[in-house]
Amino acid sequence: MKYRIDNLQYCNWSREIFKINREADLDAIHATIVYHEDFDELQKVIDTWKNHFNENSDLIFLGKSFSDIDKAKKEGKTAIFFGFQNCSPVEDDINLIEKVYEQGCRFMQLTYNNQSLLATGCYEKNDSGVTNFGKEAIYEMNRVGIVVDMSHSAEKSTFDAIEISKKPIAITHANPSFWHNAIRNKSNDLLKALAKSGGMLGLSLYPHHLKDGSNCTLESFCEMTAKTAEIMGVKNLGIGSDLCINHPDTVVEWMRNGTWAKKKNYGEGSKEKAGFPNQPTWFLDARGFNNLEKGLKKIGFNENEVNGILGNNWYNFYKGIN
Amino acid sequence: MKYRIDNLQYCNWSREIFKINREADLDAIHATIVYHEDFDELQKVIDTWKNHFNENSDLIFLGKSFSDIDKAKKEGKTAIFFGFQNCSPVEDDINLIEKVYEQGCRFMQLTYNNQSLLATGCYEKNDSGVTNFGKEAIYEMNRVGIVVDMSHSAEKSTFDAIEISKKPIAITHANPSFWHNAIRNKSNDLLKALAKSGGMLGLSLYPHHLKDGSNCTLESFCEMTAKTAEIMGVKNLGIGSDLCINHPDTVVEWMRNGTWAKKKNYGEGSKEKAGFPNQPTWFLDARGFNNLEKGLKKIGFNENEVNGILGNNWYNFYKGIN
Repeated sequence: MKYRIDNLQYCNWSREIFKINREADLDAIHATIVYHEDFDELQKVIDTWKNHFNENSDLIFLGKSFSDIDKAKKEGKTAIFFGFQNCSPVEDDINLIEKVYEQGCRFMQLTYNNQSLLATGCYEKNDSGVTNFGKEAIYEMNRVGIVVDMSHSAEKSTFDAIEISKKPIAITHANPSFWHNAIRNKSNDLLKALAKSGGMLGLSLYPHHLKDGSNCTLESFCEMTAKTAEIMGVKNLGIGSDLCINHPDTVVEWMRNGTWAKKKNYGEGSKEKAGFPNQPTWFLDARGFNNLEKGLKKIGFNENEVNGILGNNWYNFYKGIN
Repeated sequence: MKYRIDNLQYCNWSREIFKINREADLDAIHATIVYHEDFDELQKVIDTWKNHFNENSDLIFLGKSFSDIDKAKKEGKTAIFFGFQNCSPVEDDINLIEKVYEQGCRFMQLTYNNQSLLATGCYEKNDSGVTNFGKEAIYEMNRVGIVVDMSHSAEKSTFDAIEISKKPIAITHANPSFWHNAIRNKSNDLLKALAKSGGMLGLSLYPHHLKDGSNCTLESFCEMTAKTAEIMGVKNLGIGSDLCINHPDTVVEWMRNGTWAKKKNYGEGSKEKAGFPNQPTWFLDARGFNNLEKGLKKIGFNENEVNGILGNNWYNFYKGIN
């Protein structure tokens, strides 16, 4: 079977986006539904998603386990798996982890750039690793079936999470730093440890994570994929495009600043380039998966490997979540 | 002028307690009003305090600045200054700092034992120091007039806070570790840096912070005070008794565990001694200030110094808050 999965999107959700994802043949996506929202704010977001599911039931439904990916393929729809980019919805309460699982959450980042109650983010000066509460939270996420996502976390915290978690973790959207040394990209040592533990890396198409940014070439991306496969094995690689389509720039401001500072932080952008960057021409939206398929074949991956990277590897990972 | 100030109490507040504090001639106390409550939960606690102030207006009122300590002395009342033992009421929102100031908050711990969004607590394995958000929060606390309290924080975080804060910080309730090596007690180096920056140490009467616990003698406590004065100067010393009178043991459980773990943590107690420990006989409640006065004189402090330790030093510190 050939699955197509984009394991990280954060678009300005609309029927238009859901249609594009269908045109791209995506059987499943992991959709970021919140950044720094707390539990009450999450409830409002989930209400919005209930509307999306009602109004677009011909295109999408809420995914809860790997079997929903099969169901999606059969019905020609996209299964939407909920994820959080920060742990703020579970606040300081271990019991909220089971509650957000029941509401559909399947991926949760322990941190988003800054220090959280659970671990250290990649923008902090010092990284103390997974905290006391973080350890308890990982065990609880393991128990209920929420994947630990360390895409925006600092390195020691990520090594800790790999060691503490009883199930494989994921870095749903990042690239290796050997290719482009962005703060958020990951070292070879970390990628090796991730792969050894059965974890997954979702390669990102977000320009700040790409060599040459918006001008990154498909060839360069595919070369990087080939080198990364040499480092961590081809079965631990997938796509987490980090597509942020149709959002106003106020959204990237919220992602980067939350409510924790009076001055503005520009993340991997700058004061002059504060907004969302332009996508590379060969990956304007999920239909870029077709270009990836061609590019990965051209660089030398066989069909099985290409299908693995574009979806089957994530499908196999989903089997182990619950 | 001779002031008496207990700069940390967390009692099960009642008319009985307010009367005892008056019998002890306390002109002011810093009262812990919340531990791990969030902003909404804080609002309910403040409503309870409004009732206390209405029903006991002959004994207490809300203190907002050092001049309220003079007012309290003049009127024979105790000024109550609000403080938080964790930063959870300001959640992840820098703007809530000014709001809690407006509601009376004058002291806030950056952490309570565990990692917070602002800094590391003394029970964590690793201490990454004050975080990005923590730095912003300290500047904002400086601006509005909330004292940074590091009583339950880890050492590097405390050194960071001393350095970052533009105003002197406080350790409202702890003892030196040279006397009793409890996790929460403080090293000589830290106490020296605190004093050098104009900060205050409030000596604690909570048995887990005392040599020999509940059996600690007044003489031993006063000897420790004399040695601490040699280390950090007598003007940077006060009392923060940490009196937790009349609480059921469920309260110490909440203090120690919040909602972040499914298993129980016994803090500085143990499974066999899980509840509140007994106070030493010479400090059963705030009236023990009279015993402290006698003990400190006996150990060799002169009257000025004794008055400093029992209140005047805190009074002078309060002058610098706003």
